[in-house]
Amino acid sequence: MTLIIEPLTGIGEVSPGDDLAGMLIASLESLAPSGADVLVVTHKVVSKAEGSVVTLADDGPDAHREVVESEAVRVLRRRGDLVIAETRHGFVCANAGVDRSNAALGTAVLLPEDPDRSARRIRDRIRAELGVAPAVAISDTFGRPWRRGLVDVALGVAGMAPIIDLRGTTDSSGRVLDVTEINIADQLAAAADLVMGKASGICAALVRGVTVPPGDGSIRHDVVRPPAEDLFR
Amino acid sequence: MTLIIEPLTGIGEVSPGDDLAGMLIASLESLAPSGADVLVVTHKVVSKAEGSVVTLADDGPDAHREVVESEAVRVLRRRGDLVIAETRHGFVCANAGVDRSNAALGTAVLLPEDPDRSARRIRDRIRAELGVAPAVAISDTFGRPWRRGLVDVALGVAGMAPIIDLRGTTDSSGRVLDVTEINIADQLAAAADLVMGKASGICAALVRGVTVPPGDGSIRHDVVRPPAEDLFR
Repeated sequence: MTLIIEPLTGIGEVSPGDDLAGMLIASLESLAPSGADVLVVTHKVVSKAEGSVVTLADDGPDAHREVVESEAVRVLRRRGDLVIAETRHGFVCANAGVDRSNAALGTAVLLPEDPDRSARRIRDRIRAELGVAPAVAISDTFGRPWRRGLVDVALGVAGMAPIIDLRGTTDSSGRVLDVTEINIADQLAAAADLVMGKASGICAALVRGVTVPPGDGSIRHDVVRPPAEDLFR
Repeated sequence: MTLIIEPLTGIGEVSPGDDLAGMLIASLESLAPSGADVLVVTHKVVSKAEGSVVTLADDGPDAHREVVESEAVRVLRRRGDLVIAETRHGFVCANAGVDRSNAALGTAVLLPEDPDRSARRIRDRIRAELGVAPAVAISDTFGRPWRRGLVDVALGVAGMAPIIDLRGTTDSSGRVLDVTEINIADQLAAAADLVMGKASGICAALVRGVTVPPGDGSIRHDVVRPPAEDLFR
């Protein structure tokens, strides 16, 4: 099946208190979304609308570092100004998710308090206003060990399971697959970023023609790897 | 711009010595590819066509482990049957990239010897036969620390730079972006996997409507993070 990714246009700047769901719906309407589509929204506009924004004492590195330390529950690595930290959600990322890019001057944007909940709220509003409920994913841009260059991943989802579970599935030779769990939520986030870019002003995209696993999944519960299971923490 | 991902159909099983480029071109023709498109091909058919396949002494774990050890230049972690190892290409992945799924019984598929070269060869054949040269990426499915579920990444590219370098770019407030290097090759691999799946028989996809950075990039040189720069090795 052909997959199509449409950028949501015309949304513009988002500020604390803005009705982001309403803004997304106004842009979505002309695309006539269906319940089989997936709406990917970058966390930055979600955090801004929800007020997950802090005012910095100044624009220097010390003020930034202070916010990072307060958002981190554990620091995994430090090198120069770079901190790789675990957030209270269990995400491991640079600067505990604190980001000054595309934030108003003198402020920094934090991660949403509960990105799965943010996704559910947006989905509920879409269902209420448009009568259809596409799955929703909230994305952010993360670095990774061993590979240069960042990729988008999913921080929260609603209306879909984030993992395709192939355990027990057999290949064309009848052998059980070695690869058993595909993170389709992260792949959708990465795909959606291809139409967004970092300075384009596009904050959301609609993915059509993809089959997502049904269910009310959660990134926090289904994707964040418990420390005991993790080989690199 | 709307992004479109078309699966390449009708390719079927690939065996050592098969003319994979010819098979891809036969399937591509009806899509009328342009030089602005990106063709993503899963490494498994590339490895099979190139003969990067080994015969196992038997179908048990010992024979598999022996191949994994011979493909690994360094083991980072071990737990039970799982080995996270660095390959001679510098990739860090499960089982040093050795995979028995979708391999003929009694065999295992290795990584291509030089995936950037594999991508270049496919691209050169497409240019020679169709008169256009889409970028080409070779993909594989990798796990990651901290997050459950695998995602596709790029092992090799041709006709594009794998990293979008935004260093020095400013955001809407005029501040220099914190996020500076986007791995568009990995995002393309993840996006293409959305139309492939693991048991669907689709081994390649054409991505249209994306702007990739020009140049003759290399995953090995531009994406593999040198150990000295890596915080998790």
